[in-house]
This record gives sequence, structure tokens and C-alpha cells, in this order.
Amino acid sequence: MYIPDLDDMLATHARIRPHINRTPVFSSRMLDEMSGAQLFFKCENLQKAGAFKARGASNAVFGLTDAQAARGVATHSSGNHGTCLSYAAGRRGIPCTVVMPRTAPQAKKDAVIGYGGRVVECEPSTSSREAVFAEVVAETGQEFVHPYNDHRVIAGQGTCSKELLEQVEGLDAVIAPIGGGGMVSGTCLTLSNLAPKVEIYAAEPEQADDAYRSFKAGHIIADDAPETVADGLKVPLKELTWHFVSTCVTDILTASEQEIVDAMKLIWKRMKLVMEPSSAVPLATILKNPDVFAGKRVGVVITGGNVDLDRLPWMNT
Amino acid sequence: MYIPDLDDMLATHARIRPHINRTPVFSSRMLDEMSGAQLFFKCENLQKAGAFKARGASNAVFGLTDAQAARGVATHSSGNHGTCLSYAAGRRGIPCTVVMPRTAPQAKKDAVIGYGGRVVECEPSTSSREAVFAEVVAETGQEFVHPYNDHRVIAGQGTCSKELLEQVEGLDAVIAPIGGGGMVSGTCLTLSNLAPKVEIYAAEPEQADDAYRSFKAGHIIADDAPETVADGLKVPLKELTWHFVSTCVTDILTASEQEIVDAMKLIWKRMKLVMEPSSAVPLATILKNPDVFAGKRVGVVITGGNVDLDRLPWMNT
Repeated sequence: MYIPDLDDMLATHARIRPHINRTPVFSSRMLDEMSGAQLFFKCENLQKAGAFKARGASNAVFGLTDAQAARGVATHSSGNHGTCLSYAAGRRGIPCTVVMPRTAPQAKKDAVIGYGGRVVECEPSTSSREAVFAEVVAETGQEFVHPYNDHRVIAGQGTCSKELLEQVEGLDAVIAPIGGGGMVSGTCLTLSNLAPKVEIYAAEPEQADDAYRSFKAGHIIADDAPETVADGLKVPLKELTWHFVSTCVTDILTASEQEIVDAMKLIWKRMKLVMEPSSAVPLATILKNPDVFAGKRVGVVITGGNVDLDRLPWMNT
Repeated sequence: MYIPDLDDMLATHARIRPHINRTPVFSSRMLDEMSGAQLFFKCENLQKAGAFKARGASNAVFGLTDAQAARGVATHSSGNHGTCLSYAAGRRGIPCTVVMPRTAPQAKKDAVIGYGGRVVECEPSTSSREAVFAEVVAETGQEFVHPYNDHRVIAGQGTCSKELLEQVEGLDAVIAPIGGGGMVSGTCLTLSNLAPKVEIYAAEPEQADDAYRSFKAGHIIADDAPETVADGLKVPLKELTWHFVSTCVTDILTASEQEIVDAMKLIWKRMKLVMEPSSAVPLATILKNPDVFAGKRVGVVITGGNVDLDRLPWMNT
């Protein structure tokens, strides 16, 4: 298991800079008043392909040798990683295959195809996904880029908090949502090296709190099939992300489904930003834990903006 | 009738700068491809109080003498101008009264009250509004700040395209939605003086096309009660805005209700920005008239972001 270090992250930022946005940081007087903290929202919903995952995916793609690149990349994902890998592969002009359950929303398949990638469907089960994916790799020789348990991906996500440190002075804490832990691991990598006094919080839905329980237990606990509106956060930690989470994270905080939807709507309404339910989990936990954040300058990662506008969570409530 | 000039606009920008956001300019590769132009979106949905009207309102409020300020300001508006005037008055710590029909959405009333203003209700008719408003002014001696037919307001709105010129080089055209014509007049004021070669387009809903018909006829035609999803654009031109529109505008383009909603959804989806239906009219007309904009560098004013998230136009379609 190779653990990426500061030099990897710095080389990554130089490599991917032409292919990603240096996303802006926004604040809101009203949300500062509500939270009692100073919040600096790092807007990765305005990232290429609509999510921070363009960082890690670009690093993996642009780090390939020419021979590897000629064969292309492959992954399994029904979320932003598949879209972002397709985006990055398209930028380099190389093939990309994304294995997705046939039941995944058509919009997600279209997003991969829109950037030039190929979608291969599997049945909605782990065994089918693994079998189909093995077939794809055997046929194509494509390089597997895991959504988060990959040192190239983690180094890529770490460039987000490097920018945040450059954009905001005197941060006391950074908080990001946690699913598989790719963004949080990248944040740990960067902050532990460049700003070791900055606290690192991870925010997780109560209904998919495997990272929280892992953190408290001291070993990985994987949920079977968690259900949450924050659908980007259902996946479990793996050994590489567990390394960072278990050694660098200050604490993991959780929020209920209603708290997540309320925080999402609050950001849409007050900050005029379209972002995913997953991206609202940090604000939900901040508002729930004022004692933790009072008076602090807090970087908040808005992880992505790829949401189905016809199925907003408050349409059903 | 006093017509504001370049010096007024420059003095205005100096006066209001501490009270407004220098809003960012965003672009989208995908929308550029769709339009065949290069589009630079000036994001006034990220302005203080959520709309460009904070500029004109701040200018009116901060230009008052101390004696005037002590009495405060008043207006009639069930839209962004009322909210923004309340915002500006709150910044100066002076009273503000907004006359609104009792049938106006509670959220609009709450927005005024949230910034410290007072709402006085009238019946939903012009005669009632005028009678109630006259009463308010007689009682309070408050200074009337018209939503657009006011030289202080127009000079304020003109600061938006001053920033746009500083933020984007080599613009060929600027396009903004037109209702009463305050933003378009401010745009005319600034561009005719600072960048006279830049074309100025106004964009209007087909179902509220009084500015379009006025422009073609050569005199003001006021619609009685137009109905459009772009509810910020229902009001007619007045003499001061007609002066600018009739002398400086290159052309007025119109779009259907469906085209407006489609363009709105496109901006939400691709640019991750929450904005009002009114703000989508320019993009709708650009996509409808590719021959007009092909190959041009076009500034597009996103005028505001105050939309009811529970009543999005595509929820009903």
C-alpha cells in the first residue's frame, strides 16, 4: 500500500492545473450569524464536470505512461467519479469505460457518454459488478482507477485544500463530507503537512454512519446497504483512506436526513448555489454542533453540484 | 427629468462599493458550444440581498443628506427592489417602508422585514397602492426611491457593467433582461460612455413584450397586466428608462415561456447557479438567435437569485 505524501500532492497540482478549475470560495453573512463561526465555502460544485472528483481523476489520467494511456482507463461508479474520469480521459483523448448498474439513472449514464466515455451495464449487485468489471479489464487492458482507494486519487483531492489554504488566511478547521473518504484523506494529506494545527472534521449522514462507527471503534466497519438522501456517501472506507482518517481526523460528526435537506435548502436559498445533498452534510453538522465551531474560521468543502433538478429532496417532503 | 451621466455613475461606484459585492463572472464551455458565442455571465444573483437592485438602492440610500436619512426611504415593490432598499437602509441604519399588495408571497414580505424594513399592505390594485403609498409618504416624510425611473437607481445599476468591463476584455456585446429598464438603462449609461462600440441587447418575455413593441413603435407602450414566469419583468418602461432604451439599445429580443424555463434549467444544471426566471431570458434569446451572437464575446447579466425553491417553474410542467 503506497501512501501518497506532500511531494506527490504538489506534483499532482502542477500536473492537473490546466485541467481543473481553481474554484472560488464564498461566504455568507447570514450563515455566519446562524453558525456563530466564519464559514468559507470551497465551491467544488463549480469544478469541471461538477465535482471535486475531477481532481483525482485528472491526476490518474495525466499520470499514465503513453502506453497505458493508449489502452485507457476503467472504473465502476454510478456517481461523480465515473463522470469525472470520463471528463479527464476526454481531455487526454483516451478511452474510458465505466461499469454501472443497469438501474442507474439515465442522466448519470448520459453524463459519462457526454464526455466521450463508454458505459457498460451490470446487474445491481456487487458480484455482477465485479464480474463485469473483470471482463472489461481483461478485454481492454485498461487501467483501473478506484473512486477513492487509490493514491493518485487521494493526492488529487488533496489539491482542493491546498487551494483553500492559499485563498483563506488563518483557518482553524476544515470540514468535508465523508463517504469512502477520498476527499477527507486528501484534506488530511495536505493539512497535516502544510497546516498541521488546522483541525479536520468529517461529516456523515446518521443513516450511513459507518465512518463514524469505524472511527470510534478503531477499525473499519462497512455498512451493508445504507440508505440516505446524500447518495454520494454510501460507500465504505478502504485501507488507504482508513490510514488517513484514523491518523489525522479530529472528529466525525453526523446529521439526520431532515437536517441534511434543511441545510441543502439553506445553501441554495442564501448562497444561490446548486449543490448535492452530500455537500450539505458539513453545514448540517456545523449548525448542530455550535460549541465545536463557535468563533472559528472554518473551510467547508462543497463537494459537487450534480443533482437531478426534477427530483429535489424537498419535492417529496 | 435629470439624466445621469458618466460622472454620476463613477461617483456612485465609489459611494456604494463598501455595501455591494463585486460579483464574479463565470463561463461555461458547454453553453459556449451550444450558443456558438463566448458567454460571460455577470452573477448578480450573488449580489447582496440576491439581486443587482442592491446597487441602485444603495446609491439612493447613501446619497441622502443626514436630514433626509433620518426620515428614511419608502417604495412600492413586491420584488427585489423592496428587499434591496430594505437591505441598503439597514446598512445605513435608517427607516424603510415598502408598500406591497397583501396578496404578495409571505417570503417577499419576510425578506423586507428580515433586513429591518417595514411592510405596509395595500389591496392588489394600482389605485390602492398609490393611495396607501401617498399616505405613507405624507405620514413619514420618507424619500421615495422608485424601482427604476430614478436617476440614482440607474446610476447604481450602471456600476454592474463598469465591473464587467474591468473583468472581461474585448466584449462585443452585453445583454440584460428588460422589465422597467433600470438595468438596461444603467448598462446604456456605462457602455455608451466607456465602450461605445459594445452592442447592447435587451431580452424580454414574449408574453410581456411591451419594451419590444415600444422600441419598434418609437414610443412607450405599456401593457396592462402581462403574465409571465419571469415575474420581475412585468413592469413598463417610464420616461427616464425610455430615454436610454430608445437612444442606446441595439435591439430587443424576445423568448417564449418554455424557452425561458428551458434556459433557466440549463443554467442551474450546467453552471450550478440558482437564479430567477427573469435572469434566464437573455440566454433564451441568445440560443434562439445564434446568427446575432455567433463568434461574439457577450456579457450576460444574471440579474437575481431570489426564487421560491418550493415553486420552481418546471415543477408544474
